[in-house]
Amino acid sequence: MIGTTARTDEQAIRDLVDEWLDASKAGDTAKMLHLMADDVIFMVPGQEPFGKEAFKAMSDKMNSTLIEGTSDIQEIKILDDWAWMRNHLKVTTTEPSGKRIQHSGYVLTILRKSADGRWVIARDANLLTPKSEA
Amino acid sequence: MIGTTARTDEQAIRDLVDEWLDASKAGDTAKMLHLMADDVIFMVPGQEPFGKEAFKAMSDKMNSTLIEGTSDIQEIKILDDWAWMRNHLKVTTTEPSGKRIQHSGYVLTILRKSADGRWVIARDANLLTPKSEA
Repeated sequence: MIGTTARTDEQAIRDLVDEWLDASKAGDTAKMLHLMADDVIFMVPGQEPFGKEAFKAMSDKMNSTLIEGTSDIQEIKILDDWAWMRNHLKVTTTEPSGKRIQHSGYVLTILRKSADGRWVIARDANLLTPKSEA
Repeated sequence: MIGTTARTDEQAIRDLVDEWLDASKAGDTAKMLHLMADDVIFMVPGQEPFGKEAFKAMSDKMNSTLIEGTSDIQEIKILDDWAWMRNHLKVTTTEPSGKRIQHSGYVLTILRKSADGRWVIARDANLLTPKSEA
């Protein structure tokens, strides 16, 4: 049963990543906010960590930018109602002007199972760097 | 008892961070290797993740560089024999030439309690960026 639960939890987290990338591509900020804990903390190089409000503000500002990402999950470790995941992401942003920027890199994410059984993002360290501009 | 164990584990992890910074300053690579899991994975922006062997090779190459760091632990979450920690680090490297570089930023670390009860670093996402050169 433990194995079954672990597989189910792992699959739920894989589904969360897919939902996240789909919502990101669709510019569906509300859906993305639903996939994170209320006290989520995002970390990226060179700036202070930020939470849900700041994420929403940034998403709103970028709502005319197309964000297309693919993931290659490296490992998921389930720890009861918590989990950590190492993922490799490739993300291409396309501005209305047609300017495209590719980012790629690794992400270390802490996830938590909320009271309703849904997995949500709790902490996220994003190491993506720009690859090229065109 | 749970509270006591949690505090003890948290203190052990805080001690690990201090030992790490002391060993780093002393150039004591063997000590640093002792503070990480054999399958540790370090992640930094712009390069592939690396493990213990690569860490040792890099440390050996930098053994004439003085590395002085201070930490400001933001949070530690104990999950039985695992834990995650969010830390803010300031690191100054001084090369034999006298060239100093300051780095600062956040780190998200996954720790594991090994069979002998010691906490070790299992995964580490390092978001430090250079601050200034002099």
